Amino acid sequence: MSGNTFGRAFCVTTFGESHGGAVGAVVDGCPAGLQLSVADLQRDLDRRRPGQSALTTARQEADRVQIVSGLVDGITLGTPLCMWVGNTDARPTDYRADAAIFRPSHADATTQAKYGRRAPSGGGRASARETLARVAAGAVAKALLRQQCGTEVLALVTQVHTCIAPYDLTDSTVVARLDAAEIEAQTLRCPDARVAAEMEAIIAAAKAAGDSVGGVIAGVARGVPAGWGEPVFDKLEADLGRALLSIPACKGFEVG
Amino acid sequence: MSGNTFGRAFCVTTFGESHGGAVGAVVDGCPAGLQLSVADLQRDLDRRRPGQSALTTARQEADRVQIVSGLVDGITLGTPLCMWVGNTDARPTDYRADAAIFRPSHADATTQAKYGRRAPSGGGRASARETLARVAAGAVAKALLRQQCGTEVLALVTQVHTCIAPYDLTDSTVVARLDAAEIEAQTLRCPDARVAAEMEAIIAAAKAAGDSVGGVIAGVARGVPAGWGEPVFDKLEADLGRALLSIPACKGFEVG
Amino acid sequence: MSGNTFGRAFCVTTFGESHGGAVGAVVDGCPAGLQLSVADLQRDLDRRRPGQSALTTARQEADRVQIVSGLVDGITLGTPLCMWVGNTDARPTDYRADAAIFRPSHADATTQAKYGRRAPSGGGRASARETLARVAAGAVAKALLRQQCGTEVLALVTQVHTCIAPYDLTDSTVVARLDAAEIEAQTLRCPDARVAAEMEAIIAAAKAAGDSVGGVIAGVARGVPAGWGEPVFDKLEADLGRALLSIPACKGFEVG
Amino acid sequence: MSGNTFGRAFCVTTFGESHGGAVGAVVDGCPAGLQLSVADLQRDLDRRRPGQSALTTARQEADRVQIVSGLVDGITLGTPLCMWVGNTDARPTDYRADAAIFRPSHADATTQAKYGRRAPSGGGRASARETLARVAAGAVAKALLRQQCGTEVLALVTQVHTCIAPYDLTDSTVVARLDAAEIEAQTLRCPDARVAAEMEAIIAAAKAAGDSVGGVIAGVARGVPAGWGEPVFDKLEADLGRALLSIPACKGFEVG
Repeated sequence: MSGNTFGRAFCVTTFGESHGGAVGAVVDGCPAGLQLSVADLQRDLDRRRPGQSALTTARQEADRVQIVSGLVDGITLGTPLCMWVGNTDARPTDYRADAAIFRPSHADATTQAKYGRRAPSGGGRASARETLARVAAGAVAKALLRQQCGTEVLALVTQVHTCIAPYDLTDSTVVARLDAAEIEAQTLRCPDARVAAEMEAIIAAAKAAGDSVGGVIAGVARGVPAGWGEPVFDKLEADLGRALLSIPACKGFEVG
Repeated sequence: MSGNTFGRAFCVTTFGESHGGAVGAVVDGCPAGLQLSVADLQRDLDRRRPGQSALTTARQEADRVQIVSGLVDGITLGTPLCMWVGNTDARPTDYRADAAIFRPSHADATTQAKYGRRAPSGGGRASARETLARVAAGAVAKALLRQQCGTEVLALVTQVHTCIAPYDLTDSTVVARLDAAEIEAQTLRCPDARVAAEMEAIIAAAKAAGDSVGGVIAGVARGVPAGWGEPVFDKLEADLGRALLSIPACKGFEVG
Repeated sequence: MSGNTFGRAFCVTTFGESHGGAVGAVVDGCPAGLQLSVADLQRDLDRRRPGQSALTTARQEADRVQIVSGLVDGITLGTPLCMWVGNTDARPTDYRADAAIFRPSHADATTQAKYGRRAPSGGGRASARETLARVAAGAVAKALLRQQCGTEVLALVTQVHTCIAPYDLTDSTVVARLDAAEIEAQTLRCPDARVAAEMEAIIAAAKAAGDSVGGVIAGVARGVPAGWGEPVFDKLEADLGRALLSIPACKGFEVG
Repeated sequence: MSGNTFGRAFCVTTFGESHGGAVGAVVDGCPAGLQLSVADLQRDLDRRRPGQSALTTARQEADRVQIVSGLVDGITLGTPLCMWVGNTDARPTDYRADAAIFRPSHADATTQAKYGRRAPSGGGRASARETLARVAAGAVAKALLRQQCGTEVLALVTQVHTCIAPYDLTDSTVVARLDAAEIEAQTLRCPDARVAAEMEAIIAAAKAAGDSVGGVIAGVARGVPAGWGEPVFDKLEADLGRALLSIPACKGFEVG
């Protein structure tokens, strides 16, 4: 393999360039009997979509997902699920200059050095658009965790540049009180509206200055049974760290 | 993983049920810089198609393949190639009785026992239609072998029931004289026209009697460099044997 | 990996050259709670040992196996089992001529071409001595199958050159009557004493003429539950075929 | 597999319980032709050994490594390297109380929950003693990187509790000036002797108070060619993060 597959029991392979025909994923190992719908996937893809607010990149992409295998009458068969989004927004001319100029801090130069060629526009596989396939596969994983294990995974923004949200997530009562709807209600996914507003102001100021700022996302899992993960190299924190550190903009991971 | 992936360096994952939305494959590990076209794939898919002759199953499926990732301007990028065929022939009602009755010598009963459910028609993943995805991936492999290694793979039918074609494939001059066009010219892929006619008569007679007969396919590779395959478990003959024995109707494999 | 590992759930990695320090295996994925002893492994290693009869190669190797991890008080821990046999018989000078001359029909020339070097004597990894590690791992698998699934695997020699033993193994009553002790009682592992004697005579004659003959081994599994194997590439027959075809002298595999 | 294997091209499988017969590793995929000696491995194992100073756990373990396969005359064969250390220090009675009492912040309780049993003493696979096998495999990797790529990997302690060593490792001239011998000269592996002394005092004070403190280790790689790592899930930082986060005491990873 060449780095496009993640996981063994629940095995995700992603495919697709930013400006190619489609971006998608094959999930192999999802058990039979799971309830799943295109709407489950579309909901998370809509959450991911750039252009929801003035804060992120302004492209408006209407990503309509299809599930073309592994599902009959809304129930999984235990066979590979193939899901994809056609690239209606493929505008190869838009980025035409990319073919000649390497964008700083993108993978353009590395890709050219490693493969001797690269997608002529849009960053190819190194585009953040590849994460769309992960979101679709993640929606399947969420359905599996919820239906078969009663496990729920939440994430929230806890820091933007110097602004830190007041959540002590080592305190189990704080974790228990987190509310998915409150997180979703904020564009920035920080459930404290006042802090979220402050974070948005910091981002807007950086953007106005032609700059960007870093941040911290906290992930919380509720209802995790004892014994998940494997003892030595595949510890749960090792696999989670690997997954997150493979996202282009993620530069650090801490646990506990 | 759950058995839908084959290979490590050139890694093929297939997806799709016989009567679902699409059947296809993701090839990960195909190098950058290979010339490849939809026509290369379509040619082999057309060769595979049932209904070319009176000898095989009579369904006429117009399988049009698409390549939706990994390829720009007819050259591979080194990223995953996703190829698929939409199931225009999906007729779930056609096989409706399958839902209730297990067809003998099909995987229906085993699938039901293992997963607790199965595709309501067409045999799902156990359908020979799954091999369509292998043919598409195989066409990529053939292009790779030809362009980068000068290796050519041929196959011919050497036996049908008691009729044996007169080819001694342990004789290198016989192997050198095999001609792909001559093989293709015969519906049955036995290049000796007289023997092929005899084989067709045997099949037709068995079919008329409501029966079927077995046969032998010989594969020949020309231009194989020394050292392919890995020394212990992944010997070339072990991997070839595994690949062929995973085809539903293949029940034996011999080498040398 | 490089071909020295087999299996995913029950994963066997073998190591060791014919004339190196040790030959052994690591079994990862054997469940906790299995009863296992060094004697279980030694019994099968003794069955494998050359020099038991006048029929096979004459070396007498006293292969004493050790289990150095994964086992406490005769019960598996669910951690990797490492088992090995020290090469007390390592006699590098014995085969010294090998360093200069490639033995016909051995992997010497291929190994030299692929790696640019090879073990100076004894055939290295390509030696049949590597199968010693498989026998040890197989003894663990047999214990697992017997204790957790009630499955039993037998094998018998059914053909030597032109002599065919009279067992119709497609007949389930014949399979049910096979007796492991009767098979073991014959050096040649053909339970029909008269046929076994004939086979031995054929082998002795070939040996006297400086030749060797081929044969057929039939494997029988009793008590196999429905649903083993995976649907597409990892069908049970495909995995069995791969395993057997990776044994140096095995050149064919048939099922059913 | 069950989490005891790391890597694909250079594939490391570790085995052995803290108080079992041996702890070791099989490295599959190390190329042929590498110069390697037991002394190369022993040097790094000696660096790892507890009891070198008053600061770490006081056990004195004389870990003598053996290489029993894959190596002839100090040159690798390209076959699996099996390396192990016998547990001369195995004292099952020493930790006998463990069998009844779960030690806090160890994996005892999780192991018992997951497998239904565990090694009766010493923590089994979850013991830090498992890292001994990683150190041996790492010594092979270091030889490979040095001999075939000219790549060098260093690590130094840059923080203990609140004490931060004054190294700006984003400054390439600072990285270029780092000296392996200076790092080794300090028990604490912080090359600034004055800061190292301060760190040692902090650790000694915590130890005297029956406590422990956290720290930061910085890893530096010099001479890394462009293009290492795979584009999507197997990015170099993702694989490094996974490797480090699988070490029991490691709780965070940052890159760049």
